[in-house]
Amino acid sequence: MERPFTFINSAMSADGKISTKKRKQVKISGKTDFDRVDELRASSDAVMVGIGTVLADDPSLTVKSEERRRRRVSEGKEENPARIVVDSKARIPLTADVFKKGVGKRIVVVSKSAPSDKVEALKAKADVIVAGGEEVDLPVMSGELKKRGIDRLMVEGGATLNWAMTRAGLVDEISVFVGNLIIGGKTAPTFMDGEGISERSEAIELDLEKCERMDEGVVLTWRVRSSGSK
Amino acid sequence: MERPFTFINSAMSADGKISTKKRKQVKISGKTDFDRVDELRASSDAVMVGIGTVLADDPSLTVKSEERRRRRVSEGKEENPARIVVDSKARIPLTADVFKKGVGKRIVVVSKSAPSDKVEALKAKADVIVAGGEEVDLPVMSGELKKRGIDRLMVEGGATLNWAMTRAGLVDEISVFVGNLIIGGKTAPTFMDGEGISERSEAIELDLEKCERMDEGVVLTWRVRSSGSK
Repeated sequence: MERPFTFINSAMSADGKISTKKRKQVKISGKTDFDRVDELRASSDAVMVGIGTVLADDPSLTVKSEERRRRRVSEGKEENPARIVVDSKARIPLTADVFKKGVGKRIVVVSKSAPSDKVEALKAKADVIVAGGEEVDLPVMSGELKKRGIDRLMVEGGATLNWAMTRAGLVDEISVFVGNLIIGGKTAPTFMDGEGISERSEAIELDLEKCERMDEGVVLTWRVRSSGSK
Repeated sequence: MERPFTFINSAMSADGKISTKKRKQVKISGKTDFDRVDELRASSDAVMVGIGTVLADDPSLTVKSEERRRRRVSEGKEENPARIVVDSKARIPLTADVFKKGVGKRIVVVSKSAPSDKVEALKAKADVIVAGGEEVDLPVMSGELKKRGIDRLMVEGGATLNWAMTRAGLVDEISVFVGNLIIGGKTAPTFMDGEGISERSEAIELDLEKCERMDEGVVLTWRVRSSGSK
């Protein structure tokens, strides 16, 4: 099935953490990287996060630069790319910032196990895609998004969605800003969690595309060579 | 107190993991990095690991290249740098590879809480340094090592020791090879764990010294700017 070109963008500390053990976000990157991420959003057709990220951080996922929003409008697009939340059980609050802030399309992807009253309520706020039985079927979802004209999809976490999308073979590229700090903590989250591999042969193989110094850190851009899934 | 120049060397996956969730080591780096690490060992006065690493991986910590061992001997040194295990409760098996393999000094650092019969038995295998009450007092240990002529100390993990040494302000430099694979797994270990920070202000600040492509990945070398400890 055809699917969008899909890339993950993340930022981690030098020791691979994306937040503290209490899941508190800390500033990892600087101004230049912030601007790079804003440009990535502005040049995408859609930006996607998992429900865990919405519940933890309540991001608006809007394009921050007015100039970039104007550029999008002058190209006949909406100010912001479509904002997509993967949310099997339709747990997203109707008051989430992703609904309240900024102009543009919202899509909530649920599974058949989502409560139908909540799904109905969501329809006032967003397009709802139903894909999969218990959990969202990510390949089916990706096909649906492509059919809706989404050719370039940016995934912004969390760790569970990043892992699931990559393991399912739906991710083409991964960019990670590595920042100049150590966060530590045995239970501090990293940018990919989920099941993880048990054997080297199950690893997701990458090719290093770019390695650029930025702000006080480095941006590593990897191509996904093989998702290791059968 | 004077202490050795101390650096950590580690290798992690693109998503910040050093092994699978089952703590199984997987090949992360390639030949060039393996050789770089061997040279780092050969040019150090001592190589240090925590007891967790000995119990999990039983490393010998020897210099692998015969040429480098010969070079050390021609410089009036032993074939291998001193091998140091930080082991508060003296849990190291007397049959550990670090005792059995290769020529050179061994040092086991214990606390006063280590069982005295085990400490006595260890003295046949290694120099024993006692530092600290319940846990090894790392600053005292570092001072003791310097007094014994160790000017350049390489720390090779695990995550608990890496964190504790860095947090205590005893680490000058951190090199990390970032490999071209994704390991994933919520509980897969990273190269720094321990307590970790709760606030941004507690972060250990680094400066990026070098960023070099190597094998299929990148080596990032960071200087520790401030350990964030008071």
